[in-house]
Amino acid sequence: MSKSFELITMMPIGFVSSTIKAPQDDIWGGLVSRIDLDPARFSSQSLAGLQEFSHVQALFHLHLVSEDTVVTGSRHPRGRADWPEVGIFAQRGKNRPNKIGLSTCRLVRVEGVSLAVANLDAIDGTPVLDIKPYIIEFGPAGEVKQPAWATELMTGYFGKAT
Amino acid sequence: MSKSFELITMMPIGFVSSTIKAPQDDIWGGLVSRIDLDPARFSSQSLAGLQEFSHVQALFHLHLVSEDTVVTGSRHPRGRADWPEVGIFAQRGKNRPNKIGLSTCRLVRVEGVSLAVANLDAIDGTPVLDIKPYIIEFGPAGEVKQPAWATELMTGYFGKAT
Repeated sequence: MSKSFELITMMPIGFVSSTIKAPQDDIWGGLVSRIDLDPARFSSQSLAGLQEFSHVQALFHLHLVSEDTVVTGSRHPRGRADWPEVGIFAQRGKNRPNKIGLSTCRLVRVEGVSLAVANLDAIDGTPVLDIKPYIIEFGPAGEVKQPAWATELMTGYFGKAT
Repeated sequence: MSKSFELITMMPIGFVSSTIKAPQDDIWGGLVSRIDLDPARFSSQSLAGLQEFSHVQALFHLHLVSEDTVVTGSRHPRGRADWPEVGIFAQRGKNRPNKIGLSTCRLVRVEGVSLAVANLDAIDGTPVLDIKPYIIEFGPAGEVKQPAWATELMTGYFGKAT
């Protein structure tokens, strides 16, 4: 068995530039953010052809989450006692092992080593780990089912700020 | 500016157990794999309620990709000269910075600290970084568009092995 719990190291490929400067739970709708790749390692070639896709998946590091707030067991999503207590891997809260965020965003524009995306739920300065084109066949196959609490939680998530 | 290119460290939350022992490009369809969480850090509580979801997103480390084969510019997907040369962030090939794989899998079963998933394109022994429930509202909003080469590439991807 070659399985061993060795540390894996990653280097941000770039950073999020956003008008949202502090963590928030909801209202990411209508937001357009920028992801700027590290110009020392990447060029416009790194993003060549991306504009042919309507959506991208952005993976990022939830860098403001301190290690001692990471949940490994279960909790009520958002502390809402009226929602079931579910495991950290059965919810998308940020206080999770390895602190990786994942969003599927509409691609607005590609420009040099930057891209503009809609509805990215990451604050200004967030380190970006990867960008993948959204490919339909990598989406969920078959019928998709989720519990009522998840649907309820998402109601205001991408609402528009007033 | 607090943006700095500092290394980020991660620890696998568990490993993939699969009948697929070596990297392959295609034919991940019909495959059921297991993800076993580290029992020293996680319990069945970590996965509580996950069975209410039909799909999960698994993030994993493409550990067999050696650093010197990572592409930062562009290349033809799979070396296919008849497909356009596109940036590494405009394709999902494994030779990518930070070597993170991401799949949306049908959840077959949850059992203790293990889950069985369908169509996970990760080989046996792959370190797993995160598991997220697939929430519909986190899927792509609006019409999804992708170039013809991507659709063509995916034709055999989830085909069944004969």
